[in-house]
Amino acid sequence: VSEVITTTRVRYPEVDRMSVAHHAVYPVWFEMGRTELMREAGAPYGELEDEQGLLFPVVELGVRFRAPARYDDELEIGTRLAELAGAHVRFHYRIVRRGSPALLAEGFTVHGAVGGNGRPRRIPVALRERLEPFSASEEVR
Amino acid sequence: VSEVITTTRVRYPEVDRMSVAHHAVYPVWFEMGRTELMREAGAPYGELEDEQGLLFPVVELGVRFRAPARYDDELEIGTRLAELAGAHVRFHYRIVRRGSPALLAEGFTVHGAVGGNGRPRRIPVALRERLEPFSASEEVR
Amino acid sequence: VSEVITTTRVRYPEVDRMSVAHHAVYPVWFEMGRTELMREAGAPYGELEDEQGLLFPVVELGVRFRAPARYDDELEIGTRLAELAGAHVRFHYRIVRRGSPALLAEGFTVHGAVGGNGRPRRIPVALRERLEPFSASEEVR
Amino acid sequence: VSEVITTTRVRYPEVDRMSVAHHAVYPVWFEMGRTELMREAGAPYGELEDEQGLLFPVVELGVRFRAPARYDDELEIGTRLAELAGAHVRFHYRIVRRGSPALLAEGFTVHGAVGGNGRPRRIPVALRERLEPFSASEEVR
Repeated sequence: VSEVITTTRVRYPEVDRMSVAHHAVYPVWFEMGRTELMREAGAPYGELEDEQGLLFPVVELGVRFRAPARYDDELEIGTRLAELAGAHVRFHYRIVRRGSPALLAEGFTVHGAVGGNGRPRRIPVALRERLEPFSASEEVR
Repeated sequence: VSEVITTTRVRYPEVDRMSVAHHAVYPVWFEMGRTELMREAGAPYGELEDEQGLLFPVVELGVRFRAPARYDDELEIGTRLAELAGAHVRFHYRIVRRGSPALLAEGFTVHGAVGGNGRPRRIPVALRERLEPFSASEEVR
Repeated sequence: VSEVITTTRVRYPEVDRMSVAHHAVYPVWFEMGRTELMREAGAPYGELEDEQGLLFPVVELGVRFRAPARYDDELEIGTRLAELAGAHVRFHYRIVRRGSPALLAEGFTVHGAVGGNGRPRRIPVALRERLEPFSASEEVR
Repeated sequence: VSEVITTTRVRYPEVDRMSVAHHAVYPVWFEMGRTELMREAGAPYGELEDEQGLLFPVVELGVRFRAPARYDDELEIGTRLAELAGAHVRFHYRIVRRGSPALLAEGFTVHGAVGGNGRPRRIPVALRERLEPFSASEEVR
C-alpha cells in the first residue's frame, strides 16, 4: 500500500488574519493529493471524466486540525486510498510541514462513483485493477 | 433556540466543471453562517479578536453532501450553536435552496477558544451570556 | 444609463495577513456586479450559456486599488456597461464601503462574445436590445 | 536580467463551468511568481513583513487573457521585475503551458512600499541591492 506524497506551498491568499492557512484550503490540498494518487495509478481524473463519463463527487468530508500551517510553509500531503468499494471510494489524508513529523491536519473524503447522467455507477473493472495496488484494504490480505 | 438564516448566491468561480458548487466552498458558507449568528448575538468576530484577543480556530470540520448546489442558486445557510462548552463551541449547519426544503448539505464545526498567545482560554462570562440564547443545549432546561 | 449596485460583505477567507481583502477577490466582486446587471437586464448568464450557447470570457481585466477593504465590511459594487460593441462588451466597476463615498477600488473587464464552439460570435440582436438601456454609450444619444 | 520561472498545475476548484481556469486565479499565479522571485533575490516576503515591517500592497493590476488554461495543465509563470523605483515596484508576468511557447496570459502588478503604519516608505537600500540584479531597468545600463 502506498501513501502518495504531494507537496505544495502555503500561498498568500490562503492565509487569514491570524497569518495561518484558512481551514477551507485543506479540502483543496486533499484534492491535490488524490489527483496525484489517481495520476500515479494511471487513472487521471480528467481522463475518467472526459473518456469514460465517470465522476467521483465528494459525498462526505472530515478534517481534524492539529496545528496551524503558516504562510510560505512547504507542506507534504500524504494520501492513501483507504477503501475501494463497489461504488464508492474513501481517501485518507495527513498534512505535515516538510521535514517535520508533526501532524498539522488529517482528514478523509468519501466519493460516490456516478455516470454522466448523475446516476450511481459501479467502478469499472479496469479502473479497480489500477487502483487496487494503492488500496489499504489490500494490505490485510 | 434560534437557527440563524443567512443567504448567499452561488458565484461563478465557486462552480466547477460539473457546473456544481465545489465542495471546498461549503466551509466558507458555514463560516458566513456562524459569522452572522455571532453578529446577531452581539458578539461579532472582529470585535472579539480586536478588542478581547479572543480567537475561535476550527479544530474539526465535517460535511455531508446530499445534493448539488448549482451556479446562481440562492442558498439559505441555517446555523445553530449546538454546544457551548467551557472552552469550545460547536456549530451545526444545513444548506437548502431558497424556497425548497430539500437538504443540499449539512455539517458541523468545532472551535477551541484561544487567546492572542495561542493558548486555550475559557470563554469569558460576558460572551457566554450573549451566546446562551442561541445555544441548543439551553433548550432542554 | 443605470449603474447597478450589488452588495457583499468581506468574508474571513478573503482577507489576508494584513487583515485586508486580498486583491484577487476584486475580480470575483466585479463578476458579482456584472452578473446582477445581466440579471436585471433580463439576460442572466446561466440562461445565455445553457439556452443560447453564448459565452462571455474575460479577455482583459484592470484594477486600481485605492484603499483597503477590511474584514466584515459591507461593500457596494457599482457596475456599468461601458461599451456594447458588435462582438464584445466592456464593464466598469467601482467599489465603496456602504454609506461612504470613498472609492476603495475601480476597474474594468472586457469580454468577447463566443459561441459554444469557442469561436467569436456577434451579440444577438435580442440580447443587444436588453442590454442597450444599461449601456453608457446610449447616454450620449 | 532574469525572468524567474515558477510552475503550477491548474487545480480542480480553479476551473469553471467551461472547464477552463477562472480569470480570478491569474492574480494568484502572478503572486506565486513574484513570491518566488523575491525568495530567489534573498528577500522573501515573509521576512520583509515580519522583520522589517515592510509591505508591498498591490496598487494596480492588469491582465490580458490570450488562450484558456485547462484543468490539470502544467503551467509556467515567468516573472520579471520590470521597474524598481524609489517607493514602488512593477512586475511583469507571462503564463504558458509547459513545453509550449503559446502565451496563455500576460499581465503586470504595481506595488507601493509601505511601512507597518500603512504610510508610504522608500525601499531600503539593502533590499534595492538584492533586487537590482533582477530588475529590467538595469539591462539598459
